[in-house]
Amino acid sequence: MRNFDESNITEAVRDRVSAAPDPRTRAISDALVRHLHAFVREIEPTFAEWEAAIGFLTQTGHMCDDKRQEFILLSDTLGVSMLVDAINHRMPEGATESTVLGPFFVAAAPELPLGTDISPGIAGEPMFISGRVSDPDGRPIAGAVIDTWHSDDDGYYDVQKLDEHGHFAMRARFRTDADGRFHYRTIKPAAYPIPHDGPVGRMLEAQGRHPWRPAHVHFMIAAPGYETLVTHVFEAGDQYLDSDSVFGVKQSLIREWPRHPAGIAPDGTAVDQPFATLTYDFGLKPAA
Amino acid sequence: MRNFDESNITEAVRDRVSAAPDPRTRAISDALVRHLHAFVREIEPTFAEWEAAIGFLTQTGHMCDDKRQEFILLSDTLGVSMLVDAINHRMPEGATESTVLGPFFVAAAPELPLGTDISPGIAGEPMFISGRVSDPDGRPIAGAVIDTWHSDDDGYYDVQKLDEHGHFAMRARFRTDADGRFHYRTIKPAAYPIPHDGPVGRMLEAQGRHPWRPAHVHFMIAAPGYETLVTHVFEAGDQYLDSDSVFGVKQSLIREWPRHPAGIAPDGTAVDQPFATLTYDFGLKPAA
Repeated sequence: MRNFDESNITEAVRDRVSAAPDPRTRAISDALVRHLHAFVREIEPTFAEWEAAIGFLTQTGHMCDDKRQEFILLSDTLGVSMLVDAINHRMPEGATESTVLGPFFVAAAPELPLGTDISPGIAGEPMFISGRVSDPDGRPIAGAVIDTWHSDDDGYYDVQKLDEHGHFAMRARFRTDADGRFHYRTIKPAAYPIPHDGPVGRMLEAQGRHPWRPAHVHFMIAAPGYETLVTHVFEAGDQYLDSDSVFGVKQSLIREWPRHPAGIAPDGTAVDQPFATLTYDFGLKPAA
Repeated sequence: MRNFDESNITEAVRDRVSAAPDPRTRAISDALVRHLHAFVREIEPTFAEWEAAIGFLTQTGHMCDDKRQEFILLSDTLGVSMLVDAINHRMPEGATESTVLGPFFVAAAPELPLGTDISPGIAGEPMFISGRVSDPDGRPIAGAVIDTWHSDDDGYYDVQKLDEHGHFAMRARFRTDADGRFHYRTIKPAAYPIPHDGPVGRMLEAQGRHPWRPAHVHFMIAAPGYETLVTHVFEAGDQYLDSDSVFGVKQSLIREWPRHPAGIAPDGTAVDQPFATLTYDFGLKPAA
C-alpha cells in the first residue's frame, strides 16, 4: 500500500501494527495510533509545532538521569500518573487510598530498627511518625515492609542534594512489629515545587500553572498476600492542597501534624525544641 | 480541588491547563489531556506497563544526539509525520506531493555549482540527477534553492558514517538556472532499514514490522513566493514501496531510474562504468 493521505494513513498504520504477535502489544499499539492520530487531526499542527513537539520530547529525555526523571514529572503534571493509579487501585472500604509514586523513590533503601532517626544531623523541626498497618477488617499485619521518604525542610530530597545529604537520607525501610505497628523519628518535610528548570517547568509556565506540591511524607507498604500500597500523608492546612501540581491529594490522606512544645517525645526521649507528630493507620487491600 | 479519581481527573487537568495565557497553547494542552487520558482509559495500563512506557520514552530521549533523532523515527514509524505532512500540504494540481523530512536532513549544506559530483570518491554506481522546478502552470522558477541528500550504496547517510564520509557527503544545495533547471552527479542510493538498534527498533520488532525504506533521494526546494517543498523521489520496482516503514511513498513520487552502459553521461562527460539517471520535474505551490 502507498499513497497515504489524511483519509487513509491512520487505517494504514493500524493495519501495519496488527502484525504484533503479542495480543496486548497489538491492542496498545492500535489504541496508541488511534488516539495519537486523533490528537494530531484535532490540533492540525504546523510543521514548526511538530518540530517543537519533537524538541520538547527530546529535551525531556535528555533531562532524565539517575537523579531526575522528567518523563515521570510529565506524566504526573498531565494527570496521567493519578489516572493510572486510580485505574489500578479501586479500593475496598478499610483500605488506604493510593497516590502517585513521584520521581524521587529510590529502591533498596536500608532497613532500620523501629524508632531510628532517619534524618540525623539534618536541620529541621523534629517529627515523630507512627502508625499501624492492618487488613481492611482492622487485623494487624506483622512484618509489613514500609518504605518511607520525604523532602528536607527546604523541599529537597536527598537525591537532589547528594553533596549535602548523601544517599538514603530522609528515607529508609521499616518492618511492622507483631501488632502491625511502626514508628521512627525524622524532620518535618516542606511544601516544594517539582523540579521546574526543564521542559516540564516550561510547559507549566506556558499553561499558566505553578509547580508546587503540598508538604507530604511518602509511604510504600508491602506485605505478602496484599497489594503493595503507594501513598502519601499530607499536612492539613497546607496552602497547596487544592492545587497540587501533580493532582495527588485525596481527602483521606490528609492529617493534622500537631506541634508540641519541647519535652518528652512519643518515643520517650527528651527533645529540647518544639516537635511535630504524624500518625496514620494504613489498611492494605488483599491481593486478587 | 482534591480527591481525584477516574471520574474527575480528566476534567480537573483540563481545568488546570485552561489557565494557559496563549490560546493556541491552551487548545493544544486541552486536546493533549483529552486524547492522552482517553488512550490511558482505553488500555488501562498496569503500573508495570506505565513504568515500561516511561522507560521507553526515556530511552528514546537518551538515543537522541546530533547524529540521531529517535523521536523523529518514532513519529515517522507511527505515521504521525506523514499525517502532519498531509494536513499541511493539501496540494493543488501541478504541485509536487510532499513526504516526510526524515531524521537525516542537515541544515546549511554547502551550495555547489550545477553539475558538481556530490559523492566524489564514494563507492557506488554513478547516478546523474536532473530536473526542473516550475509553478503549477509550468512556468520555470529560476533561482530556486534545492537541498538534496541521500544514502550511500549500503544505505547509510554521511552522519551515520562520519569517519568514512565526513560531513556534507552525498548532500548539497543547488540553485536552478534561468530555465528552472538543475543537474548534478552522485551515486545511486540503496534501500535501507531505519536505525533499529534503539527503542524504535524494539517497538517495530514487537509490532511484527520490518524497518526498511525503499531507495530514495531527498529534495527540499525553496523559492520566494512558494511553499517550501519537502519530498523524495523513489525508485520504481523497489521491493519496499508498499511497506515503507515510515509510510512515505506516494505513486506520483516514484520514477524509473534507468541504467545505461558505460559511455557519455547526460552531462557530456565520459563514464567508464554503467550508470543510472534520475529525472524529476517539480512543481511548487504558491504561498498562501
